[in-house]
Amino acid sequence: MARSPILRKSDVSLYNQVEGLIKNWITDGTLLAGSRIPSVRAMSKKLSVSISTVNQAYALLEAQGHIEAKPQSGYFVKRLTTVNTPAFKSKAMPTPRFVKDSSRNLDIIHSCSNEKLVPLGGAVIHTSLLPTMSLQKSLLKVMRQDPVKAMRYAPLGGIYELRKEISKRTFDAGYVVDPEQVIITNGCTEALNLALKSCTSPGDIVAVESPTFHGILRLIEDQGLKLLDLPATSDKGIDLDAFTEKASKFKIKAALVTPNFLNPIGSLMSDENKEKFVQLCYKHNITIIEDDIYGELYFTPTRPLTLKSFDKQDKNYLCSSFSKTLSAGYRIGWVIPPESEKEKVLLFKSTNTSSTNAALQMTIADHLANHSYERHLRKLRQTIEKNFALITATIQKNFPEDIKITHPRGGCLIWIEFAPSTNTLDLFEKALKKNISVVPGCAFSSTGKYMNCLRINAGVAWSSEIEKALIEIGNLAKTC
Amino acid sequence: MARSPILRKSDVSLYNQVEGLIKNWITDGTLLAGSRIPSVRAMSKKLSVSISTVNQAYALLEAQGHIEAKPQSGYFVKRLTTVNTPAFKSKAMPTPRFVKDSSRNLDIIHSCSNEKLVPLGGAVIHTSLLPTMSLQKSLLKVMRQDPVKAMRYAPLGGIYELRKEISKRTFDAGYVVDPEQVIITNGCTEALNLALKSCTSPGDIVAVESPTFHGILRLIEDQGLKLLDLPATSDKGIDLDAFTEKASKFKIKAALVTPNFLNPIGSLMSDENKEKFVQLCYKHNITIIEDDIYGELYFTPTRPLTLKSFDKQDKNYLCSSFSKTLSAGYRIGWVIPPESEKEKVLLFKSTNTSSTNAALQMTIADHLANHSYERHLRKLRQTIEKNFALITATIQKNFPEDIKITHPRGGCLIWIEFAPSTNTLDLFEKALKKNISVVPGCAFSSTGKYMNCLRINAGVAWSSEIEKALIEIGNLAKTC
Repeated sequence: MARSPILRKSDVSLYNQVEGLIKNWITDGTLLAGSRIPSVRAMSKKLSVSISTVNQAYALLEAQGHIEAKPQSGYFVKRLTTVNTPAFKSKAMPTPRFVKDSSRNLDIIHSCSNEKLVPLGGAVIHTSLLPTMSLQKSLLKVMRQDPVKAMRYAPLGGIYELRKEISKRTFDAGYVVDPEQVIITNGCTEALNLALKSCTSPGDIVAVESPTFHGILRLIEDQGLKLLDLPATSDKGIDLDAFTEKASKFKIKAALVTPNFLNPIGSLMSDENKEKFVQLCYKHNITIIEDDIYGELYFTPTRPLTLKSFDKQDKNYLCSSFSKTLSAGYRIGWVIPPESEKEKVLLFKSTNTSSTNAALQMTIADHLANHSYERHLRKLRQTIEKNFALITATIQKNFPEDIKITHPRGGCLIWIEFAPSTNTLDLFEKALKKNISVVPGCAFSSTGKYMNCLRINAGVAWSSEIEKALIEIGNLAKTC
Repeated sequence: MARSPILRKSDVSLYNQVEGLIKNWITDGTLLAGSRIPSVRAMSKKLSVSISTVNQAYALLEAQGHIEAKPQSGYFVKRLTTVNTPAFKSKAMPTPRFVKDSSRNLDIIHSCSNEKLVPLGGAVIHTSLLPTMSLQKSLLKVMRQDPVKAMRYAPLGGIYELRKEISKRTFDAGYVVDPEQVIITNGCTEALNLALKSCTSPGDIVAVESPTFHGILRLIEDQGLKLLDLPATSDKGIDLDAFTEKASKFKIKAALVTPNFLNPIGSLMSDENKEKFVQLCYKHNITIIEDDIYGELYFTPTRPLTLKSFDKQDKNYLCSSFSKTLSAGYRIGWVIPPESEKEKVLLFKSTNTSSTNAALQMTIADHLANHSYERHLRKLRQTIEKNFALITATIQKNFPEDIKITHPRGGCLIWIEFAPSTNTLDLFEKALKKNISVVPGCAFSSTGKYMNCLRINAGVAWSSEIEKALIEIGNLAKTC
């Protein structure tokens, strides 16, 4: 943090007034990260203080890292990404091993979809943030237009109109695929499942970031694969040096990774690192399975690229879904396999669940073609970014002082590291009794690591209930 | 076939007239199997022939196996089940083995859902036979009533209302389970997949009828299991003596079987044999996975029981879906595991696809609770039974004379055995060129057996197009 400018004592209360107002606006979400704050002149008028005082207060806020000046444009609320907190570092296990009973805690899984709990657990976007009514309109429309189509088996790869819409959206993520290359699945879960089955055999080594989504750990266990942890940090994602070392040491078959806003630590790999990672995987003959489910939830100026956009040799898989942007309950996802593996994936799909239901594919295809998906996404990103600010502020005010907290540039998840002695499984259970769901850190490791960490969902409809629940978690944490 | 009564020469043309009329009515579906034919007096009046002539013609038709007399009730069209054709016998391989490239012919799979083809391939019920409009009504209703519920993740095991409706229907199939014991899946495919994963490990031996559904063969291959063929006949299903021998000889882990109307040969096991089979499996420590997807499509007086109804020790799995009775495109099925395995199955479900979409679960739950599902099923069974008669008659008239054809008492599939030299893969390809889909027998074996057999779907909307397609297949068969 830069040094604060020196203030004259007599001006302090005026500065405080300006500073306090701006900070309140940031905290209560009136001013979103990235948005312009009132001009010096306007603020001077509003608070009846001199222009020079406002100027100095703004300089102070800038020095504190809350706002930033842009030439010729004025002052803006600084994006969370630039907050200076130490990055979270993972505790990767050094060697590959079979996964046994990985986070096989059904209580945790059930709690994530239990509607009666305050939803700080599951990585779930609250329905009030989603286009419920316009999706419903699409559903009613397609069912009236072609009820018979909804009754029939969809083609195994999916309904063409939806595949086309998805292929159109891949441009933004830095790559181009034909609609026929997109295979529709029952959510991102089935996409990851099919991709992994298609490029590995039982006993193969699969590298994943540590920590990672508990569903990925269970998937690796179910398919009889060996897990190899990859060290990662919350600011940069996979540590490429450590990856290079492990790739040289072990025969890694596939890397199942989330370069954009890793669940749970929210890390984002730079474009440079993405390209290097793809090249390293080519070199070591490692197939990449990319989980891009959070890719659209960015607070960065543009959509982050995918590893797929650097995959010039078409060797890798991309998996995603609409669960974080349109509806989790619809269960519509997709996998884009390499051209050479498409038939194999289709055959696995035919055995896994057969084709995906037709009605909801038709609905989403109509929605993407005819509704304002882009506008919805912009609003959704703003709301989640605002939630991040609100939740972070509430946590910083009410949690033990020695915590570390991530400041992701996208996604919907916040990761908190408590003092080493804190037991978040205990915290999870105590919170459950207070009807609050959170996910304890051990769920994101196959060996009970991260026992002092906690994942908080920011995809909420902010309310005093959520705020109270966070305060409650903070209080409980002091006893765990 | 019983000997025909001796006729006086002078009466022959009159007999022919009566006989021809009744046979036409049976063939064109005016008279369904089981329905009463006009009384002797009415027929005598209609055709202006003597009562004695009609009497003799009816006796002749009875002797030929077309109609049957019931005391005090008159004459009835004989049920197909009693047609005296030799049962189809399977060619089971003697030993277990891993499955490689089992029926991995994507052309066959794609052709089954290709709407542009005459649909004699896939085991698909034509939408005109299904309650398209009332399902649509249910969908519109539930989406209006609770659009938010449809947006959310459903509970992992499924939406309670649907599980309750399914549990109510199990009474008819001879067993009782709590709603919580029913796990909703993406079609019967996912149900079989989860059940098999839950009770076997790679390398285990799984016994299945030969021939069996090609999806089951692929499932066994995908999970790295060994396949053991069980001999079966089209009239009785699994040969229990042969099964006993194999169960003594090999360590069978699971039996994945279809006692009610096996796809493709339509066999139905008797209750006695079902009970014996369950006991034999107990004795040899074999877990049964029962595929009951055709169980509701019976032409027998009552719903056939399930193996599950004899499973007093609660060791076995039952899998089914609404794909053959409400909608294939909805992809809603279920698995009922033993109580002891429920958590395991739920965990596999969470990894395989996560929960099943909410909207279509809500729709079917509403439909079952508020619409005339029973009335629909009665009508559907009648239509399919009529289709069986029409298709069988058309085949017998137009196919090579040396074929054998099954006469199932339920399901929607007809199995034809041609002369040993006939190549039905060739026939499949030639039919495809004429825009007709059929499934060649080799698809139902992992070793290219049944190359001279063909499966025909009877779940069609009967029309001259279907009739012409059948005649075309008959003609093509003569060249294959």
